[in-house]
Amino acid sequence: MTLEERIVALARSAKKVSSSLATLPTTAKDRVLASMARLLDEHRHELKQANDLDLRDAAEKGLSTAMLDRLRLTDAVIDAMAVALEELRLLPDPVGKVEDFVKRPNGLQVGRMRVPLGVIAMIYESRPNVTVDAAALCLKTGNAVILRGGSEAFRSNLALAGLFHQALEAEGVPVDAVQLLPVTDRAAVDILLAQDELVDLVIPRGGEGLIRSVTAKSRIPVLKHYKGVCHIYIDKDADLHKVEAIVLNAKVQRPSACNALEGLLVHREVASRCLPPLAEALVARGVELRGCDVSRSLSPVITAAGDEDWGREFLDLILCVRVVTSYDEARDYIERYGSKHTECVITENYTTAQRFLAEIDASAVMVNASTRFNDGGQLGLGAEIGISTTKLHAYGPMGLEELTTRKFIVYGQGQVRG
Amino acid sequence: MTLEERIVALARSAKKVSSSLATLPTTAKDRVLASMARLLDEHRHELKQANDLDLRDAAEKGLSTAMLDRLRLTDAVIDAMAVALEELRLLPDPVGKVEDFVKRPNGLQVGRMRVPLGVIAMIYESRPNVTVDAAALCLKTGNAVILRGGSEAFRSNLALAGLFHQALEAEGVPVDAVQLLPVTDRAAVDILLAQDELVDLVIPRGGEGLIRSVTAKSRIPVLKHYKGVCHIYIDKDADLHKVEAIVLNAKVQRPSACNALEGLLVHREVASRCLPPLAEALVARGVELRGCDVSRSLSPVITAAGDEDWGREFLDLILCVRVVTSYDEARDYIERYGSKHTECVITENYTTAQRFLAEIDASAVMVNASTRFNDGGQLGLGAEIGISTTKLHAYGPMGLEELTTRKFIVYGQGQVRG
Repeated sequence: MTLEERIVALARSAKKVSSSLATLPTTAKDRVLASMARLLDEHRHELKQANDLDLRDAAEKGLSTAMLDRLRLTDAVIDAMAVALEELRLLPDPVGKVEDFVKRPNGLQVGRMRVPLGVIAMIYESRPNVTVDAAALCLKTGNAVILRGGSEAFRSNLALAGLFHQALEAEGVPVDAVQLLPVTDRAAVDILLAQDELVDLVIPRGGEGLIRSVTAKSRIPVLKHYKGVCHIYIDKDADLHKVEAIVLNAKVQRPSACNALEGLLVHREVASRCLPPLAEALVARGVELRGCDVSRSLSPVITAAGDEDWGREFLDLILCVRVVTSYDEARDYIERYGSKHTECVITENYTTAQRFLAEIDASAVMVNASTRFNDGGQLGLGAEIGISTTKLHAYGPMGLEELTTRKFIVYGQGQVRG
Repeated sequence: MTLEERIVALARSAKKVSSSLATLPTTAKDRVLASMARLLDEHRHELKQANDLDLRDAAEKGLSTAMLDRLRLTDAVIDAMAVALEELRLLPDPVGKVEDFVKRPNGLQVGRMRVPLGVIAMIYESRPNVTVDAAALCLKTGNAVILRGGSEAFRSNLALAGLFHQALEAEGVPVDAVQLLPVTDRAAVDILLAQDELVDLVIPRGGEGLIRSVTAKSRIPVLKHYKGVCHIYIDKDADLHKVEAIVLNAKVQRPSACNALEGLLVHREVASRCLPPLAEALVARGVELRGCDVSRSLSPVITAAGDEDWGREFLDLILCVRVVTSYDEARDYIERYGSKHTECVITENYTTAQRFLAEIDASAVMVNASTRFNDGGQLGLGAEIGISTTKLHAYGPMGLEELTTRKFIVYGQGQVRG
C-alpha cells in the first residue's frame, strides 16, 4: 500500500466505526475510561521505557530542556492522566441530551438532540498526555479520533495508544475508535487533511507555526487559536487593591500559557498611583517591562517598547505597558492588537464593566479576574480539548458539548404540511 | 482599482462596520426592518421596472419558464418579503442573550453571551427575495453581509439593496452593513472566497453545482447542504391510516424542495397491504414510481428502478420505492443513500421510533410526520437562512441563533488562579 492508501484506509475505518460509537451506551464508554486509568497505572514501567527511547533521541537531536520536560512521562504525569480519565468518567455524557424541546401549534414535538460530530483529527506537538486526553474526550462524546502527535514523542504515543486499544478491546468497543497515524512523515498529515469526506473536524494544538500550516492545508474545518495576546485594562475606576494580585497572577503564574497576560493598559488618571508600585512588584518577580513614553516617565524600571512589542505574544516573563487616556482608547487598542483570546478590565464602575463585557470581541471577557481563568476546567466545562478563537461552532474553551452537534428530532402523530 | 482591490475594499468595509453592528440596539435594527417593509411597498413600481429588465434579458437568453418564474418580482412576492420583514422584526434578538450562567466554587460568575459571527457572505441563485431575507436576518443578528445573487437577477437585486441602504441610512446605521457585489463577474466570487481574514462565514444557496463550486474554492468556513435525498420508511408496525397523507404530502406538496421525499422504503410485512393503494394514489397525483422487483410484483404502476435511481435527488414528481425485510435494512439503506437531510419513519412501535430517532444520522429525523417539516419556520426557529447538513456549528435549518456564536463572560471580584 502507498502512504496515501494507508492514510485513507485509516480514515475510512474511523468513519466506519463512528456510526456505532454514536450510539454506544455511556456505561460502555465510561468502562473504557476506567480500564485505561487502571492500565496506565499497571503499565507505567513500559510507558517510561518507551518514553526513555524518545527522550534519548530527542536529547541527541539537541532539543531544549523545556522541550524535553514537556516530552517526559514521569510518574506524576502518568498519575495526572489517570486522574483526568477518572474526572472525565464522572462527567455527564452529552450525547443523546435533548434541548429546546417544544410543542408546535400543530402538535409536533420538536427537540434538538446532541450527537457526535463523527471523526475528529487531533494534530499536536510534544506532550504525550494529549494522546490520552484527546482520545478520552473523543470517546466520551462518541467520536472516532485520529491522533497525530509530535514525531519526537512517537514511541511514547504508540505505547499510550496501545494501552487505549487494550482498554477498548476489553470492553468490546472497536479499537478503530482511537487511531494513531502509523508514520511520522509530514506527508501523512497532508494526506489526512485532504480527507474532507471522511474526517469532520481538525483540532491542531501547538505553536502558531503548526496551526497556520494545518489551517492552510486543511480541506476539513479547523478549530483553533493561533495565539493568545491577552490584555488587562486598569480603568480609572479600578479598585487599586485588586490590581496587583490579578496582574501578577495573569503574568507570572504560567507565562508560557496562551491565557497569560501580554499587554497591560492603564488609564492615565490612575497611572501615577498604580503603575510605579505595580511595575516594581512585576520586576521583583522577574518580569521585564516594555512601555510607552508616559509609562516610562512614571516608573524607571520600564524600558522602551519597540513597535513590534504591541500585540506580541511573548509567552515569557515580558510584558508591554501602555498608558491610555480613555476607555475608548483601551477598547480600540484591544481591537487592534488583541487576538480574540482573553481580555480583562479592572473596574468598580458598573457601566464600564457592562460595556467591556458587551463590546470587547474575545472568546472570554472578564471583569476583575485573572486572564488565566480562560480554561475549560476553570470556566466549568469539566474538561477541555482546546481553545477556539474562531467563532464558528465554538468560541473559547471547547469541552464535551463542543465535540457534539445537535440534530432535530420530531415526534409526530401523522401531521402533514399545509 | 482592479477587481481584486474593489472586492477586498468591500470586504474590509464590511469587517469595519461589523464591530459597531455587534452592539447596535435591537430597537435600531428593528426600525430598519420596519422601514424596509415600508420602502418595499412604496417602491414596488421601480422594483418591478428593474425586474422587467432582468426578465427581458433572461427570456432573450432562453431561460426556462420555471427559472423566469423564480426571477419574477410580482406584487405577491413583494408583499411576502414585507411580511417576512415584519415577522422577523417581532422575533427576539439573540445578540446579548446570556446562557448557561453559573457561579463557580471560587465565586466567579460565568456565562455565555450570544454575539454576532461578524461578516457573512451569501451566494445564491435566481430568487431576488433572498437578497432581502438574507440582509434582514444578518442585520437582526448584528452581522454585516455581502450578497452575491444570480447574474440574471442583478438589476432586481441592485434595486432591492438600494432600498435596504435607504432604510439603513434613515435609521443612522452604516450602509456597509449590507453590500451587494457590484459586478456579475465570476472572478469576483473567487476573490471574495479567499478573504478568510475578513469574512467569517459563507452560505451558498442553490443547486448542487453552485454549492460544490463555492465549497471547493472557499478558504472561509461554508455552511451548506449539497442536496436533500429524503426517505420515509414504512415500518411493519406502521399505522397504515397515517401512511397515505404523510407520503403524499412529502412527495407532491412541493417536489422541487430539498425536504421533499425522494425514496420510499416499505417493510415487506405490510407491503402487500400498503403499497398497492399507496402507489395508485401517488400515480393519480402524477408521480412516476421506480421500484425494486418486489415492489413491482405488488403493483403494476411501478416501473423498474435503475441503479442510478437509489439515492438520487429527483426534485420532481418521481419517487423510488424499495421493499425491505427489516428495520436494520432500512437503516443501512438510509445510511448509504441518504444525504443527512431529512429522514422519517412511520411506526406505532415505541422501540422502533426511539431507535430511529437515536440511530439515524440526519439533520432532522422524524416519526409519523411529513419530511416537508424540515424548515426553520415549521420547526419553530421563526426564520431560516438555509439548511446545513454539515455538522459543525449548525445541523439542520439555520435561524437567528445559528447566525451568532457565544463568548464567555466572567464577572469576578478580584479572583486569581491558584
